[in-house]
Amino acid sequence: MNCSIARALDEVGEWWSLLIVRECTQGTTRFDEFQSELGIARNVLTARLERLIELDILERYPLAERANTFGYRLTEKGTELYPVLVALMQWGDRWLSPNGKASVELIDNASGKPVQPVGVHGKNGRKLSFHDVRFAPGPGATKTTHAVIEHRNWRVLGDSDE
Amino acid sequence: MNCSIARALDEVGEWWSLLIVRECTQGTTRFDEFQSELGIARNVLTARLERLIELDILERYPLAERANTFGYRLTEKGTELYPVLVALMQWGDRWLSPNGKASVELIDNASGKPVQPVGVHGKNGRKLSFHDVRFAPGPGATKTTHAVIEHRNWRVLGDSDE
Repeated sequence: MNCSIARALDEVGEWWSLLIVRECTQGTTRFDEFQSELGIARNVLTARLERLIELDILERYPLAERANTFGYRLTEKGTELYPVLVALMQWGDRWLSPNGKASVELIDNASGKPVQPVGVHGKNGRKLSFHDVRFAPGPGATKTTHAVIEHRNWRVLGDSDE
Repeated sequence: MNCSIARALDEVGEWWSLLIVRECTQGTTRFDEFQSELGIARNVLTARLERLIELDILERYPLAERANTFGYRLTEKGTELYPVLVALMQWGDRWLSPNGKASVELIDNASGKPVQPVGVHGKNGRKLSFHDVRFAPGPGATKTTHAVIEHRNWRVLGDSDE
């Protein structure tokens, strides 16, 4: 599928992968910490960490406090998954929290104010649903992409002039 | 785990689920359309659709154009997954597109301008990474949550006064 969502899910569309990334955003670095925080079998954790390193989402780095030991941290590619995590978290807060009560709030450390809801916004800041958005060919569009785009816009927006 | 990300992944942390939600945002409604768009086995698709209905992410509705036939569409809960999808798409565009060229662009239909990158932003609009964000107890915080929050803020932000 010529689709970035499918490609992204191929890399992180697996329960443990995003939870490992979540752990990294919470300061977890050492193998033992990941294991105790996630309650995951050592062999599964080893395989997941190796895979995330192969994908350049995580990297190993030497731990200053202990000779010859390594920690794991997010690369730039991994760090850029943060909006995915926060979008999932906010969705879970809203729809899946016991009694609708979120356990954790995210606070912008500089201002002391809660972070904004993650959303899809237009240039003018207006919040958009998928009904407000049309597809257009990107630089990597193929012939098939053009047909898919036209069909999608017609189905969702009810016109076919793009 | 008292964690909205883990709960969210429990519901949609499975390859096909988010691709089915993606299909809905692209105007797919009928079983046969899902099947041909996704190239998924009928029994797997049936199970996934049933599960998403149970979770109140999808709902069945009668198709006007055909008597006694049903389509599938997103509920409000399902519609609110859109930021997760777009965040995944933009991450895939950036990191996984062949030659770095995205195949599809999302355009705000009203303005004709591309949608903004999905991100985590403070009240003032500043883009935040996980290093800029502290955890605070939400209304559903337990005693354990408080300990987790303090530990996390100390590890990531290097202080422990929260």
